[in-house]
Amino acid sequence: MFSFIRKPQTINNQFTPKPERHLQGTVRFIPLGGIGDVTKNMYVYEYEFKGIKEILIVDCGVGFPDANMYGVDLVIPDITYLIDKAHLIKGIVLTHGHEDHIAALPYLWPKLKVPIYATRLTAALANVRLLDRSVSAPITVCDRDKILHLGNFSIEFIHVTHSIPDANHLVIRTPGGTFYHGSDYKFDWTPVDSDPTQVEKIAKASSTGITVMTTDSLGSDRPGYTLSERVILKGFEKEIGNCRGKFIVTTQSSNISRIQQAITVAIAGHRRICLLGRSIKQNVEVAQKLGYIKLPQSSMISEKEIKRYPANKVALIVAGSQGQVESALSRIALGDNKNVQIYPSDMVVFSADPIPGNEEAVHSLIDLLVDLGAEVSYSEVLEDLHVSGHGSQNDLLLLLALVKPRFVIPIGGTKRHMYHYKALAKTLGYNNEQILLLENGQVVGFENNKLVKQNPITVETVMVDGLGIGDVGNVVLRDRRKMAQDGIVMVIIPFDKPKGTIEKDIDVISRGFVYMKESEQLIYQAKQMVIREFNNKKTAKDPLYVKKLIEDMLEKFLYDKTHRRPMVMVVLIEV
Amino acid sequence: MFSFIRKPQTINNQFTPKPERHLQGTVRFIPLGGIGDVTKNMYVYEYEFKGIKEILIVDCGVGFPDANMYGVDLVIPDITYLIDKAHLIKGIVLTHGHEDHIAALPYLWPKLKVPIYATRLTAALANVRLLDRSVSAPITVCDRDKILHLGNFSIEFIHVTHSIPDANHLVIRTPGGTFYHGSDYKFDWTPVDSDPTQVEKIAKASSTGITVMTTDSLGSDRPGYTLSERVILKGFEKEIGNCRGKFIVTTQSSNISRIQQAITVAIAGHRRICLLGRSIKQNVEVAQKLGYIKLPQSSMISEKEIKRYPANKVALIVAGSQGQVESALSRIALGDNKNVQIYPSDMVVFSADPIPGNEEAVHSLIDLLVDLGAEVSYSEVLEDLHVSGHGSQNDLLLLLALVKPRFVIPIGGTKRHMYHYKALAKTLGYNNEQILLLENGQVVGFENNKLVKQNPITVETVMVDGLGIGDVGNVVLRDRRKMAQDGIVMVIIPFDKPKGTIEKDIDVISRGFVYMKESEQLIYQAKQMVIREFNNKKTAKDPLYVKKLIEDMLEKFLYDKTHRRPMVMVVLIEV
Repeated sequence: MFSFIRKPQTINNQFTPKPERHLQGTVRFIPLGGIGDVTKNMYVYEYEFKGIKEILIVDCGVGFPDANMYGVDLVIPDITYLIDKAHLIKGIVLTHGHEDHIAALPYLWPKLKVPIYATRLTAALANVRLLDRSVSAPITVCDRDKILHLGNFSIEFIHVTHSIPDANHLVIRTPGGTFYHGSDYKFDWTPVDSDPTQVEKIAKASSTGITVMTTDSLGSDRPGYTLSERVILKGFEKEIGNCRGKFIVTTQSSNISRIQQAITVAIAGHRRICLLGRSIKQNVEVAQKLGYIKLPQSSMISEKEIKRYPANKVALIVAGSQGQVESALSRIALGDNKNVQIYPSDMVVFSADPIPGNEEAVHSLIDLLVDLGAEVSYSEVLEDLHVSGHGSQNDLLLLLALVKPRFVIPIGGTKRHMYHYKALAKTLGYNNEQILLLENGQVVGFENNKLVKQNPITVETVMVDGLGIGDVGNVVLRDRRKMAQDGIVMVIIPFDKPKGTIEKDIDVISRGFVYMKESEQLIYQAKQMVIREFNNKKTAKDPLYVKKLIEDMLEKFLYDKTHRRPMVMVVLIEV
Repeated sequence: MFSFIRKPQTINNQFTPKPERHLQGTVRFIPLGGIGDVTKNMYVYEYEFKGIKEILIVDCGVGFPDANMYGVDLVIPDITYLIDKAHLIKGIVLTHGHEDHIAALPYLWPKLKVPIYATRLTAALANVRLLDRSVSAPITVCDRDKILHLGNFSIEFIHVTHSIPDANHLVIRTPGGTFYHGSDYKFDWTPVDSDPTQVEKIAKASSTGITVMTTDSLGSDRPGYTLSERVILKGFEKEIGNCRGKFIVTTQSSNISRIQQAITVAIAGHRRICLLGRSIKQNVEVAQKLGYIKLPQSSMISEKEIKRYPANKVALIVAGSQGQVESALSRIALGDNKNVQIYPSDMVVFSADPIPGNEEAVHSLIDLLVDLGAEVSYSEVLEDLHVSGHGSQNDLLLLLALVKPRFVIPIGGTKRHMYHYKALAKTLGYNNEQILLLENGQVVGFENNKLVKQNPITVETVMVDGLGIGDVGNVVLRDRRKMAQDGIVMVIIPFDKPKGTIEKDIDVISRGFVYMKESEQLIYQAKQMVIREFNNKKTAKDPLYVKKLIEDMLEKFLYDKTHRRPMVMVVLIEV
């Protein structure tokens, strides 16, 4: 029932990582994002030797704003460190097609303009994300079974299983040492696309020694192995068997494997399939074209055709599993889609991890659908019982035992996941010095199998809000937070500067504070106080001083009267 | 893995609710809160016969603001319907001491000033909540084994098990029919206070027929029975056995049973106990005084004494299990408590349901503690694996089978829980007409065992913000939402009304929009546009018209340039 972060105990496991031979130069690893915050993955690998310096970047993903980042759409990695080093960068290699690994490209690539490399599906999805924002960047499609040579880096792709096909780990070899980049994975021996992890390649890579492994750590607090994605099929089969109306599945648009399974059961149930929602359509189209999704055109129907078929001959795969207000599913539930109505025989299956923070929205959406009479099936549990795309403790141990790196760096998890990972690694015989718990911007360097001290770089949280990238900072957020809590009160004082007196009536305006019509008394009192204060001050000729004084006084007055702390702004207008 | 809302199938169960005999008059049930939103429980029962009208109120609890209610502290039931009927109200009866059943009393009781009735612990806790807000209301302490007579209502308390001791169901008898009020419960046969549900009283009550039962429905999507609260003890014992430093438990302050168990293991482990956090201290003090918590004074130490004991001789029970910023635990984690520091041998146990919406805060707090070196054990799962205070499907069926009401009304759940409950009740042989899914404000009436149609009343969401009750409405919230997203831009235009021209420079001020110093260009353009527009308008003499015009234009301009929609406010100052 509880999940424990235990003080790690060292077990005397037979364990000797193989040292790499004949190394020369320094290698460095710098996480720009992806550590401590799960998302916005972006990692810098550096090789330096006798005046040569080369950089390789892995992934370029977005993150999601936390609850305090009011109005912020996305967060992206801070590439300040790279800006004057674009000429040293050999390329950006992408591991897989999830948003948190590729979707910052349209924001950041234009500032670097370096080549992008990825395997087929990942390249295609990255291209969609780029074109979405009208950025046209050349992407080189790589064969996963060929070594990619970029300067002194040689990169081997190792196919791994995750909740999206075409996911890879990377073996990054340099003359100074070898990195194993263990991006998101689990060991799924029966993946939906029948393409399991290339274990043999992992074993082979480790045979010559690996200096450092970075590894997904998100599931480090879950015992055992993560279940195969394929078990979802059984759930879908059971559901569709009970469904006498439209069969509606909602999941995240990037979960290609789950979409495939919904398609599979729909076709087996002799239903026509309609995709709803821009992102699902885009992703399926791309995956279909490349053969990563099996969906014959003859089984597909358009939104307008839905009504021509009996309800029990139709399956809809719909975006909006997180309860997003503008999503296809929300619009259907609100009756805003004239082609799709919900009837009591319909069934809606929510097949997605609810992202923390979205529960309320998801539950409201479920309530709406239930109220329309639909049967709704949903997963009321988080990662633990849901089939996650991320490995659990045994998956993580298996990789570690296969790769046997000298050093290991957990990535893609929060602090507690990293500590859990550390405890895990110790059970395999690793010691404290070998398990590096980093922060974004922390630099680790290695020379001849040994850790060498490096100075950290500074990375900030870069926020995207509308068209602005990084123009929302702490001051703007603090103001939004204050106004979100208690609104704003503005006092406009027309004053005669030479005389230091108030001319005409002062104006008090508020938004989001109290309903003004019911607070006339309060506003009147505030006005009187301002006038009194203003006229009392001999220093009234110094506008900035008076402004500050009145603001402080009003804040106090309003808090006493209401126990609210609106933003108070005094504007002095010289007349 | 999934939880299903199935189309209910009627099973031909042998089931005949006993009709009540010799009834006269009409009885009504009106939920003012507690339906569809789980919290802010408040229910009105009415009896009417030949010009007599009497009202009984059950519970008076608070609810929590949803994510869109920026800045709102609490929501409380809307008692508009009762305001002119205070003279008809025989009293408020409280079922148990949780916030969502008692904590609206300080806000609403002063408007009604009717007698309050409750059993011992509940009465004491309600009194604490009232005094907290300086409201002094007389509460009559009831003996749970005596019938309470209030006008035509006679109320029988039936002790039930929940996550707080002294919880009750109510049998409310009137000459017009009998209600069974089934507030929060589960059937826990080994409760922490060794005081199981008075099943025999339930059976006896049902023997003369029950017209309507209202029932907790929150666990209606969980199969089986809910586990006994006592299983938590095993978890605590395992934890404390591994703990070489301070043993720190955090839970909700109203979860008296869990606090008792933390105390029990601490005493067994020869540790001194310190309580931290105002609400936990208050609740434990009250419960201790009345004998609901067993905690000898000799085992307690004050905050200042902690340092005098070896760490492994100390146990702390600390408020802040939801990651609240100002809570005792957050303050400890941030190093703001000079009496309590976290050291690597300390252990922190989170023993509470994370309330949806609080996950992020809880996880941040865990990360802080982990970073200080503490071992942290936490429940990563929701209601499903956590020991809930609410009954699961079999608990709910058991009550229904015991009470055998003619009609049943699920309360204390959201829409989907009510639908789940309906499906459940049908398996016992109930039909659609007998299971009433209500909304707050919907009135149901009964005459001689039969449902009679009633008109609904209007209930709004009443929000509490600071000292204001109900003065935050939709307009204020809409403004807060807008400013939270994109801030505010104010344009102050000093103008000559007779001439219709702008005098002096116009002022553009923003908060929470963009970092102004980096957006001089944008502001300059906006100013120019305003001046151009103003001077072009022949109608400039009509200030309201011009104001609206410029606001619209600016909104569009700023959206085009930034894709943000700040609140735009134009203030015209006549000079």
